Amino acid sequence: MTTTVPPLLEALAGRRPRRLPVWFMRQAGRSLPEYRAAREGLTMLESCLRPQVAAEITVQPVRRHRVDAAIFFSDIMVPLRLAGVAVEISPGIGPVFEKPVRSADDVRELVAHEPGDPQPVVEAVRLARAELDGVPSGDASWTPLIGFAGAPFTLAAYLVEGKPSRDHLAARALMHADPASWDALLGWCARVSGAFLRAQVEAGAAAVQLFDSWAGSLRRDDYVAHVAPYSKAALDAVSGVPKIHFGTGTGHLLPDVRDAGADAVGVDYRTPLDEANRLLGGATPLQGNVDPAMLAAGWDALSAHARDVVTRGYAAPGHVVNLGHGVPETTDPDVLTRLVELVHALPGSAKSAAEGAA
Amino acid sequence: MTTTVPPLLEALAGRRPRRLPVWFMRQAGRSLPEYRAAREGLTMLESCLRPQVAAEITVQPVRRHRVDAAIFFSDIMVPLRLAGVAVEISPGIGPVFEKPVRSADDVRELVAHEPGDPQPVVEAVRLARAELDGVPSGDASWTPLIGFAGAPFTLAAYLVEGKPSRDHLAARALMHADPASWDALLGWCARVSGAFLRAQVEAGAAAVQLFDSWAGSLRRDDYVAHVAPYSKAALDAVSGVPKIHFGTGTGHLLPDVRDAGADAVGVDYRTPLDEANRLLGGATPLQGNVDPAMLAAGWDALSAHARDVVTRGYAAPGHVVNLGHGVPETTDPDVLTRLVELVHALPGSAKSAAEGAA
Repeated sequence: MTTTVPPLLEALAGRRPRRLPVWFMRQAGRSLPEYRAAREGLTMLESCLRPQVAAEITVQPVRRHRVDAAIFFSDIMVPLRLAGVAVEISPGIGPVFEKPVRSADDVRELVAHEPGDPQPVVEAVRLARAELDGVPSGDASWTPLIGFAGAPFTLAAYLVEGKPSRDHLAARALMHADPASWDALLGWCARVSGAFLRAQVEAGAAAVQLFDSWAGSLRRDDYVAHVAPYSKAALDAVSGVPKIHFGTGTGHLLPDVRDAGADAVGVDYRTPLDEANRLLGGATPLQGNVDPAMLAAGWDALSAHARDVVTRGYAAPGHVVNLGHGVPETTDPDVLTRLVELVHALPGSAKSAAEGAA
Repeated sequence: MTTTVPPLLEALAGRRPRRLPVWFMRQAGRSLPEYRAAREGLTMLESCLRPQVAAEITVQPVRRHRVDAAIFFSDIMVPLRLAGVAVEISPGIGPVFEKPVRSADDVRELVAHEPGDPQPVVEAVRLARAELDGVPSGDASWTPLIGFAGAPFTLAAYLVEGKPSRDHLAARALMHADPASWDALLGWCARVSGAFLRAQVEAGAAAVQLFDSWAGSLRRDDYVAHVAPYSKAALDAVSGVPKIHFGTGTGHLLPDVRDAGADAVGVDYRTPLDEANRLLGGATPLQGNVDPAMLAAGWDALSAHARDVVTRGYAAPGHVVNLGHGVPETTDPDVLTRLVELVHALPGSAKSAAEGAA
């Protein structure tokens, strides 16, 4: 029945499908042997930019775990590479830039780059969709693909620091030392991030998620004034699909994360979902937030924790079960498969739980 | 007048001295050329364990910046080294252990270590006190020295991971996978941490600060059940001096951080002090929380931000001005000196500010 909406899209619309949808951030990644096989001999960015490889990796966790969504396999740095910025992903370190963006001149030079041709991304999304259109999810005959992009602040933090950093001091200093350059930099990041999302939606992504990995390092006043408007610009670049917005350590920013143009908020593992729902006023679908550390804590501890997450999530109008951060690379994939089975066996709403208990 | 109490101790007792006390986490460190000179040719742990070097480095920022407290120069790893654990501080990386503590057997082996002889620490504190007894702070004729230790969870996170990590997944998994080993491990960490603080107080430290660098990675239920009791045990090992408890990213844990036996709470830069004061019920002295990123944002932005921090801090019964995290190593020391002068020129309380304005 092609008219049946997949559970992911029901939940993101604030409804309670019979079955709770579940997927995992970084489900397409190093925890899977088939991922390591597909990546063999290729750098991270090569893997992202070869359509058949990226499509294969995108679909792998759906095949294996029967999760209710694929997330497009890519890297936060891909839109920068497409725009011609010199960046490499150094194994064990992360993104490393040939030339960090520190001065007003550096910013001027950067923002002269156009977003670049998204053709490899468009082709990869199409290939992945071709397979996912035949994979059922709940009562639907197909499994949705979620488009992916890094948020402007996270891109800018990497660009300014030139490499991963803990507190993003140089980026956060630039924000105040030279607001005009900051505006130009974040505006450009929003443009490439938005173009990247738009290309995925045009190729068939049924939802998008904007990842602001580093937003948790921000004071709220800085987030609201100097970051959120650019995240909103990136999200505003797409329309017609639900938009999920996620950052780690953002318990102090949740309403602002939502107000930056999001339909649903991804909650990291630190904020219990009933509390997140309260902070958000009870009207926003939530995604999350099983603690990734629990994946290695044994099944008894993990399953009790996952049940607690689902129960707290009943407070929200819709709930997409996920982790509260990415899958650690040391995770046993069988634990993830078992977790999907557990979530699918749990009642989809407080009402069905009460009926089941009665 | 030796009967006059230094501003730091007034503020930590919940009073409002005429002058706001100020010091900086990591003030004794790489931002100072005299520090780099004193450390030359010595490893981090050698510097900490040579009493004359440690005392010299402890006193340097008081001489230069006229801050209202010295913090004992040491490293979170020193008590572990004193106990005979094989650890090195690797430049650019951090603590690296010969053998991470992963299994129940590893924990049993670790906890057989006794805390070890604190003599180098005792001697260093005595040497630093000898100089600080003659340095005025506000109306007092002497400047207090704050004793220092890493909190049990932070020690355990390093021990289990074997090196610095972002999310402390292995440590947080062990907490749930093997609660008995976790209890033994944290209990031991509390014992060495408490002994380290006690040695400093017996040698003349006038206050202590427990640093839980990684507590912000914890869910609240985990913090309350599996971490806070051990932090309390470490703090309970000393008496007769005020106790400051600090962690980064702990906005979701502030009352629990206080309830772990603290007299004052250090607040990281993400939580505005008026909000922290509200979360803590208005009865707890606060320390913090100038954003370290602002030290590189130019004087106009920094001074406006520092004034805002002081104004928000007026809500609390006592306020020790500090950063919301450590001094970045790239900081211009003259900016810190100027910031101390600014804080000392500001009204010490909302009342004196109103009188000044009238």
